Amino acid sequence: MKVGVIGLGKMGMNLALNMKENKHQPIGFDLDSKNLKEAQNLDIMTASNMDNLLSQLDEQKIVWAMVPSGKPTDSVLTELSEKLSKNDIIIDGGNSFYKDSIKHNELFTEKGIHFFDVGTSGGMSGARNDGNFMIGGDAEAFKIIEPLFKAIAAKNGYLYTGKAGSGHYLKMVHNGVEYGMMASIGEGFDVLEHSPFEYDNEAVARVWNNGSVIRSWLMELAEDAFKEDGNLDNIKGTMHSSGEGRWTLDEALNQEIATPVIAMALLMRYRSLENDTFSGKVVSALRNGFGGHATDKE
Amino acid sequence: MKVGVIGLGKMGMNLALNMKENKHQPIGFDLDSKNLKEAQNLDIMTASNMDNLLSQLDEQKIVWAMVPSGKPTDSVLTELSEKLSKNDIIIDGGNSFYKDSIKHNELFTEKGIHFFDVGTSGGMSGARNDGNFMIGGDAEAFKIIEPLFKAIAAKNGYLYTGKAGSGHYLKMVHNGVEYGMMASIGEGFDVLEHSPFEYDNEAVARVWNNGSVIRSWLMELAEDAFKEDGNLDNIKGTMHSSGEGRWTLDEALNQEIATPVIAMALLMRYRSLENDTFSGKVVSALRNGFGGHATDKE
Repeated sequence: MKVGVIGLGKMGMNLALNMKENKHQPIGFDLDSKNLKEAQNLDIMTASNMDNLLSQLDEQKIVWAMVPSGKPTDSVLTELSEKLSKNDIIIDGGNSFYKDSIKHNELFTEKGIHFFDVGTSGGMSGARNDGNFMIGGDAEAFKIIEPLFKAIAAKNGYLYTGKAGSGHYLKMVHNGVEYGMMASIGEGFDVLEHSPFEYDNEAVARVWNNGSVIRSWLMELAEDAFKEDGNLDNIKGTMHSSGEGRWTLDEALNQEIATPVIAMALLMRYRSLENDTFSGKVVSALRNGFGGHATDKE
Repeated sequence: MKVGVIGLGKMGMNLALNMKENKHQPIGFDLDSKNLKEAQNLDIMTASNMDNLLSQLDEQKIVWAMVPSGKPTDSVLTELSEKLSKNDIIIDGGNSFYKDSIKHNELFTEKGIHFFDVGTSGGMSGARNDGNFMIGGDAEAFKIIEPLFKAIAAKNGYLYTGKAGSGHYLKMVHNGVEYGMMASIGEGFDVLEHSPFEYDNEAVARVWNNGSVIRSWLMELAEDAFKEDGNLDNIKGTMHSSGEGRWTLDEALNQEIATPVIAMALLMRYRSLENDTFSGKVVSALRNGFGGHATDKE
């Protein structure tokens, strides 16, 4: 089927290539002409603007938005809500907050347009081959686009999750789990780094990937990283984040669920972004106050 | 090669079968005659007592002890230190604490016996096929037993980790990482259980196992568990532990390494074993004390 792909960044471009290779017909559009040019070099059909994109689609238009969550997604979806017609299909494949997706769904449903909130996992390599998709939206309309997901996903790598919002919610929790798993892997290697033995990190990750209980794609990524840079001397331990871990914790707090591991994983990311903390200064001042313990001077 | 296997429990029995299938010759011994009988039914050669076992081995004896850590292992290793001779080889494949293994190594080294501390991962299925082994001990002597590991391990599934103690240390940290990963997976499903959507846990685990970032053997085990019992109605959430997670945290505390995720995973296991906590009573009493907030009565 013809699919308008809006946003030809790392994820959108790889998805378009994946669709093309699997006998669907992506037509790409991006505000950045560099990305458009690259798509053309990769033999992906492109459109010069949104109207041109929509004019190239079938009568029942199918559009996949793959742009950063928040304002960029809002802006693209708002424009599409004005330009699409009844029965058209819009897929938000980005990392939108599920409550935003519920609102977007209301906007489109008013006009009889089918909206799907699709959480996409597997990173760039997954977008390119054997992707992973968690799909919320109308069950009937899903049947129309299911062949597309069947074509671009890993075997058993897509799931219709229920009503609108449920796809991005599941992706949010997936990322929360990812935070905890990654933090645990990081802490384990930190213990090894301080151990009385001399371990080869790459060899450790490799043996852990072959038959151990903790074998996982994340450990494979660790193996790759250690292969390039055995002690990761070239990167800092600052851990940025893009929202989903935070939303998972917000949700746990809203529902009053004890999720201390995901919470610590998130808070340690924040800690990693500070060279020093004000809480540390306060504790140090208090120790000095009651016990005369020396403080370190700024 | 001939290998005396002491301890024919779940792990030892599967290891013996693995050895036999891969052209080595296990001779099993267990204090429990039921296990001995079962080994015979599985066509594993057995010995009636320790002396009988040792008499059936080659001149350079190789013995693999696979018994619970702590006293049972201590007792078997002490007896073997008296009965083995110079150049014999003893493998402790259990989950011994690495400092115990360093002591055991000293005991054997005095007598010219080669000791290996081998962390075994992959569970029962790994012991049976494609095992995972982290091996500390003398590098020269390791060459003698390497063919055995090559035969019974997964491809790239064994690693010589360095001097005595390093195998069990690495296995200890592996288990610490496992605690954090498992807790994160558990917390994620707990959020889903309280979500505004209706998820099928088995389907969620399955889609997460096929192309997502968090695909892992632990998630596959979750999928299997949900397949049997979709909401795990038949099991309680009490989480027992057998030591290694605790040792990992002890080690992190000794080395003063911040490992909050592994710590929380461990502490939440302890919490799960209590119906109520004394700390909860204290906090509740204090809230009542300053604010008149109601307490729940016992």
